[in-house]
Amino acid sequence: MSDREVVYGRNPVRELLRAGRRDVREVLVLDRLAREPWLRGARVRTADKATLGRLAGTSDHQGVIAFAGPYPYAEPRELLAEPGPLVCLDGAQDPRNLGAICRVADAAGARAVAITLRGSPGVTPVVCKASAGAVEHLRVARVDSMTGFLLEARQAGRTVVGTDPESDAGFRGSVPSDAVVVLGSEGAGLRPRVAAACDRLVSIPMRGRVASLNISVAAGLVLFEAGRPA
Amino acid sequence: MSDREVVYGRNPVRELLRAGRRDVREVLVLDRLAREPWLRGARVRTADKATLGRLAGTSDHQGVIAFAGPYPYAEPRELLAEPGPLVCLDGAQDPRNLGAICRVADAAGARAVAITLRGSPGVTPVVCKASAGAVEHLRVARVDSMTGFLLEARQAGRTVVGTDPESDAGFRGSVPSDAVVVLGSEGAGLRPRVAAACDRLVSIPMRGRVASLNISVAAGLVLFEAGRPA
Repeated sequence: MSDREVVYGRNPVRELLRAGRRDVREVLVLDRLAREPWLRGARVRTADKATLGRLAGTSDHQGVIAFAGPYPYAEPRELLAEPGPLVCLDGAQDPRNLGAICRVADAAGARAVAITLRGSPGVTPVVCKASAGAVEHLRVARVDSMTGFLLEARQAGRTVVGTDPESDAGFRGSVPSDAVVVLGSEGAGLRPRVAAACDRLVSIPMRGRVASLNISVAAGLVLFEAGRPA
Repeated sequence: MSDREVVYGRNPVRELLRAGRRDVREVLVLDRLAREPWLRGARVRTADKATLGRLAGTSDHQGVIAFAGPYPYAEPRELLAEPGPLVCLDGAQDPRNLGAICRVADAAGARAVAITLRGSPGVTPVVCKASAGAVEHLRVARVDSMTGFLLEARQAGRTVVGTDPESDAGFRGSVPSDAVVVLGSEGAGLRPRVAAACDRLVSIPMRGRVASLNISVAAGLVLFEAGRPA
């Protein structure tokens, strides 16, 4: 299976084809979608809903699935060559949250995302779908030691900004345009050693009665702040 | 059923109890949760997982459900008396998106949310759960005509800011602290008459290859901008 991954959903398959980074063996679609312009150039075959559901392993396929080569992970070091903010996710993530973070990272101009080798689901079909296909354009690397990677980023001259709800420093005006932005697991925050490896820790001021934000919303606020003066 | 609504999940039930706005008949929890401090003062009974799942209609109950009186909707006009930004959601929403928007609205300091009578799910148990309980503190009203409501808000002196991906005007520095922020359905944007009822239309600049944001992320960016200078 590892050399024949399933990508499902309209946006994910469209971005898979647009990005052109993976070998796409075949696209299976419902009959009514077979002549969609974004499918031009792909090897398309029609299938019924039940077949698509069975192959995708979910009913969430929107009438289109593709068989593609494995996700092209980057090497951690390569991420440091990408322009714009770099997103680092410490610890475990729910696949839908990981996908949602990748979607907002792309929208904010990030080109690179580091995830931990342990705890993170990696770029699974669920992650692709939740990212609306953004993972096909981003460079994603799995790092063995997040602390080690952050120290390497600092040595390369990058400013590492960790998000920490306990920090007294607000996020506004504190995110350089090429910042390395570190987010913890939903709820758990950064691990102490990872927090210690950051240049600064910032928080998002909570003005409500329920003191929490979805992690992809928090990622959006911090990443869209990149390069903005105080 | 309408006078005995189910609220499920740890955060939703905790906020239901904290807010004290609804008559809470009974809380059912797994045995291991029965002595949680946030349940103090509530009428608590233990139940097994299967019972909770059956009563909640989902396995997503986290071991706790409450039976409460109906959600206390506000009258549309009352929303205009609330401080901070006011969130208006035009057209249909997925319940999870509606809940996620309510969560971020609360975090950003909004106290009031207007939804359309048609198309919107209203404050269902799924919406409560996705909001992490924020709906228990917010005032939510259902409006028959969003256009009419926005014109009323303008007559009351509020600035109505609509989000429109086609607008050339960025959102930064364009959201007064007491703005009425109007968001359209995911994907569809604002209806033309609703857009025409706004004082201004703003967009979030997309810097990525996949030009879209989840609506709760977009809501977060615009709402956290409230009161911030350009």
